[in-house]
Order: sequence, then structure tokens, then C-alpha cells
Amino acid sequence: MSAIERIGRPAVLKTQRFGYDGKGQATIGRDTAPEAAWGEVGRLPCILEAFVPFAREVSVVATRAHDGTVECFDVTENEHRDHILKISRVPAALPDAAVREAQRIAETIAHRFGYVGVLAVEMFALGDGGLLVNEIAPRVHNSGHWTLDGASVSQFEQHIRAVAGWPLAKPIRHGRVEMINLIGGEVGDYQKWLAVPGAAVHLYGKATVRPGRKMGHVTRVFAD
Amino acid sequence: MSAIERIGRPAVLKTQRFGYDGKGQATIGRDTAPEAAWGEVGRLPCILEAFVPFAREVSVVATRAHDGTVECFDVTENEHRDHILKISRVPAALPDAAVREAQRIAETIAHRFGYVGVLAVEMFALGDGGLLVNEIAPRVHNSGHWTLDGASVSQFEQHIRAVAGWPLAKPIRHGRVEMINLIGGEVGDYQKWLAVPGAAVHLYGKATVRPGRKMGHVTRVFAD
Repeated sequence: MSAIERIGRPAVLKTQRFGYDGKGQATIGRDTAPEAAWGEVGRLPCILEAFVPFAREVSVVATRAHDGTVECFDVTENEHRDHILKISRVPAALPDAAVREAQRIAETIAHRFGYVGVLAVEMFALGDGGLLVNEIAPRVHNSGHWTLDGASVSQFEQHIRAVAGWPLAKPIRHGRVEMINLIGGEVGDYQKWLAVPGAAVHLYGKATVRPGRKMGHVTRVFAD
Repeated sequence: MSAIERIGRPAVLKTQRFGYDGKGQATIGRDTAPEAAWGEVGRLPCILEAFVPFAREVSVVATRAHDGTVECFDVTENEHRDHILKISRVPAALPDAAVREAQRIAETIAHRFGYVGVLAVEMFALGDGGLLVNEIAPRVHNSGHWTLDGASVSQFEQHIRAVAGWPLAKPIRHGRVEMINLIGGEVGDYQKWLAVPGAAVHLYGKATVRPGRKMGHVTRVFAD
């Protein structure tokens, strides 16, 4: 209750652990009873976050090596649908200064944690050019899947290079890239995607299709 | 003997089966005793080939689908060292007309065999612009390994698409590409290659290093 007084409404109540793709979240609007929202997320330990009027959501996938070297992939712009990442686009439509600042933030976070491996930092890009960190994922990340087809090195190889103590690769992007998640029944479209020039289709081989479940993704690379 | 009379010297005696990387071959020079050459290759059934004064060796990796569709990767120029493929470069330094002719030849071969899957056709490009087919490999091929990192679809995925009855992908090349085989002890250089920007390192995990053995390869992609 006191958190709501401090942060204001609307706000988002999120479980401290195991939340993803909108799971473990409840929105507290003007008239929501706090108890009801807490019930929605199973009365687990939670944090409360204010709503942010952001222009776009972006993420930086960064890799830090044992020796402190950091390599960032190009900043990715993420479009969500029903709380689930639907499309990642690279490069993000940000001014150069914001791109540098986003990568500097990710680099700083990796350094402060003494982190080794790949991590993703999600940020809100505000209308005034500011950036707010929204989430840190200490692992390879859905918004970095485009690197498998769209860059000279993938986030997966970078992670292995980092933890194996190998030199990190300097990622070179092959063009403008779009990564489209196949969610739930959309995976049935894979035959259509197979026929699209420049599209790479990834199916995760999950046995059961469920609404909202990430079943695969498609990467499209376009000449810059 | 009669074959040597017909074809002339120098010539190359090759076993009909299981020859690769210069194995199962003997050169017949001006003074070579035919019996000695045949002894060299284990007195197996052989074919005799004339020497060809070629300007360059190229190959076409083509994929044919069940429905007769054929997709060719860009023509690759191959440099051998000690009878073993050392470097493949794409695109090959051929005039446009020769490129089209090379792909037409590969396509015709695939059609005539009613072939489904990936096949490679090696050719000699002569000084006068002509092309001579040297070898047909009914499989994915070393000179197509560059497609793993340098194209929107790899020869391996194209093969699976073909045999699965899926539509073939239209291969889009990411730039100028070089594939360098790591032969024998050269595999020890992999740490050096890991640090080269834009280089992708592939190690085959073979337990024993032997001279002349293909232990891995490196692909380098350069902006066109």
C-alpha cells in the first residue's frame, strides 16, 4: 500500500522471481484493489514499478570476457504484443548519441557485476532522448536471436567464447535485420516463411503448441 | 598402355573409387613406366585423364528439389595446395557469361541424374573462357562450407530442405567470402583466427592431427 502511495497509479506489480512474457505481473489501475492484484500473482514477494511513458523499447546484448573486455551487439528495438516479444529490429531507430549511451549503460552493468558471459539489458527510450533500464537478463536473450543469422558471430558463440576464456569476436552485422517470434499457432506458418527470400526459419521442436508459447522464430536480413 | 597412347603424356591415373585429396592418384610423366604408376595406386581399376592447362578451378554447389527446382550458390574459386583444397573464394574471378555457363552446367547435370539434394560440380576454367567438368560430388562439399557463415542459407540446410520436400531457399551472399581449410597442424592456429574480426572458426573435433588431414576451417566475410 505504501509503495502505491509513493509510486502512484497506474503501476505494475511483478513477482520478484520467475516472471517472464507478462507472467507474474498484474497492472494496478486507478480502481484496482491492491489485495486483488497481489492475489493475481499468487501473493508472492513482489516489486512495484511505475508506468513509464516510453517512445520505444530497446535492448543491448553485451558480452563480457574474463579480462574485462566487453563487446556489444547493435542496439535492438523490440515490439511486444500481449506482453510477449513479437518483433526485434536492428538497428534501433535511435540517435547515435542514444545508441552509444545504451551500450555504455550495458557495459557499466556488466563491469559492476563482474559478469562473464552474455547479458541483455532492456531499456525504455523516452521521448526526451533519455534511457531507463527496465530489466537485466543475465543470459542469452530472445532479442539477440537475430545474431544467429544476421551477424558474423552469434550471442551463443560469444557466450561460449567468454566462459571459455577465448577472445570475444567483433560482431559485424550483415544488414538490416528483423527477428519475428512465432508464438502459439503462428508456428503453423513455417512453410510460408520457408519460401520467403532471405528468411531463416528456426523451430524449437516443442511438442505442444499453447497460446502465448514461443514456438520458433524467423530472421530476415535485408541489404543495408 | 593404349589409353596413354590415345591421351598422351603427361596424364593422371586415378582409381575409379575412394579417391580424394590426391589419394588414389599417380602422375604419368614423360618417363614414367605405366606399370609403376599402376603399382602406386594399388593396381586397382583406374581411369586415365589428360592434363588440362587450366587458368583456375571453380565449383558450383547446386541443390535440386523433388519438383525439379534448382538453386545454385555463387560460383566458388578453389585454390589447392598439395592436392588438397586450401582456399575457396567467392565470387570466382570469372566473366558473367562463364558464371552463367558454370551454373547451367551444374543444373543440367542435376536434372539428367534426376538428382535430389546438394551436389558439387568442379570445373576447370580454361584460358580461352571454356569450362571443363573435372569432378562431380553428389553431396555437400568442402567448397560450399563458406555458405554456413557467408550466405542466408547453408548448403546443409538446402540439402535438408530438398530431401524433406520443402521449398529451397534463394541463397543471398553476405559479402565477399574466403574459406580457409585448417590442414594438419594448422589447426593449432585456431586461437589466432578467433581474434580476427569477421572470421568464423570451425573445428571438427577430430581426435588425431595428421599431415594432410582436414581438421577445421575458417570463414572470412568482407563487405562487398
